[in-house]
Amino acid sequence: MANLKVPKAPTIRRMPTYLQKLVELHAEGVPFVSTTVLANYMNLESIVVRKDLEITGISGQPGVGYKTDELIAAIRKFLGWNNVFEACLVGAGSLGSALLGYEGFEGYGLRISLVFDSDHRKIGTTIHGRIIHDIKRITELLKPCAMRLGMICVPSAYAQPAADLLVANGIKAIWNFANVSLQVPDDVAVQREVIAGGFALLSVKIAQLEAAKKNGEVRNVG
Amino acid sequence: MANLKVPKAPTIRRMPTYLQKLVELHAEGVPFVSTTVLANYMNLESIVVRKDLEITGISGQPGVGYKTDELIAAIRKFLGWNNVFEACLVGAGSLGSALLGYEGFEGYGLRISLVFDSDHRKIGTTIHGRIIHDIKRITELLKPCAMRLGMICVPSAYAQPAADLLVANGIKAIWNFANVSLQVPDDVAVQREVIAGGFALLSVKIAQLEAAKKNGEVRNVG
Repeated sequence: MANLKVPKAPTIRRMPTYLQKLVELHAEGVPFVSTTVLANYMNLESIVVRKDLEITGISGQPGVGYKTDELIAAIRKFLGWNNVFEACLVGAGSLGSALLGYEGFEGYGLRISLVFDSDHRKIGTTIHGRIIHDIKRITELLKPCAMRLGMICVPSAYAQPAADLLVANGIKAIWNFANVSLQVPDDVAVQREVIAGGFALLSVKIAQLEAAKKNGEVRNVG
Repeated sequence: MANLKVPKAPTIRRMPTYLQKLVELHAEGVPFVSTTVLANYMNLESIVVRKDLEITGISGQPGVGYKTDELIAAIRKFLGWNNVFEACLVGAGSLGSALLGYEGFEGYGLRISLVFDSDHRKIGTTIHGRIIHDIKRITELLKPCAMRLGMICVPSAYAQPAADLLVANGIKAIWNFANVSLQVPDDVAVQREVIAGGFALLSVKIAQLEAAKKNGEVRNVG
């Protein structure tokens, strides 16, 4: 009966950050965590934290907070991260390499097991422990895996062909790091990572701080 | 009097994507763009697009849509992107390199002019046209610039020291790509880029598609 309401994107986006902090606290032997501790860490109001965590079906106990291990399990279950997502990645350039070396993924149950590129200087080399395979071998290598998740890190001109190739080989979810909108069938999920989205949020924060400073100065003068 | 309401994070995050599409259309000589065209491109309902664009103070005309150049100017003004943001970047590893090579930034008025690292194998080399400077020279090189924006792309253990260094040298906004929460003074804006946030959104989309498929199958059986 839980999770009937579709949670808002910012709430879902924050889940990995809660998870990371909770796993850290759990490793330090902290059995309970208060809303206040999480709110301080997240730079959010306590009420927002409580609302966010409601989507996992877990409620904090007054004066005690959340059971750390219970909340970790609930967030993982909500996101489907209690099972490992095996993923393939297309495009082993600097962004692809950065993602292959990203410290955080292991904790989220994301395992990039296959990497493809079309550049003959890269094929056969190893980046962060993964062999770069020729994109021409995608069908042969994907077939035995029943893999559902593909990451696209190619230059934008090659992103649609890469998506078509992934879809033709059974991929049902695409994490798109290229700077274009992809066309995929209705039964394929796409998440486009727009890196400038974060810059837009930061730009608005800068404008707010500058306005506050200006108001403060006016107040000082007056 | 406009923009009194604080827009929601997803709306702000979508602004660069609208902007990119509008600039593309403008370059193709398209003088007006309908809500429907934008909604299709964004994979959103028309009503959401209309609400999103309201924050720029521009309204579409019934049957005609938005004036492309007017909307471009309004989005840039809303985000403060009509002036160039000069930025410095700390950490020229694979993620830093990927950001230096990112195709999209120039269109958003973001110019990464100074790059720092502490690795002597990198210092003095050039990545995507930028010289990598010794982090020890940060004060000397930042001082003449009046730069406000710093990007942190160092491993998480070095992120807080990097932030302290940036703040001590007058940086007022930090775009944090390291996987940690930073402590900064109240008058400094921080945007933490949690790459797994996008994966969380994709995971929820996957679960929704699987639930829909299951329901479809049940319906087929019954």
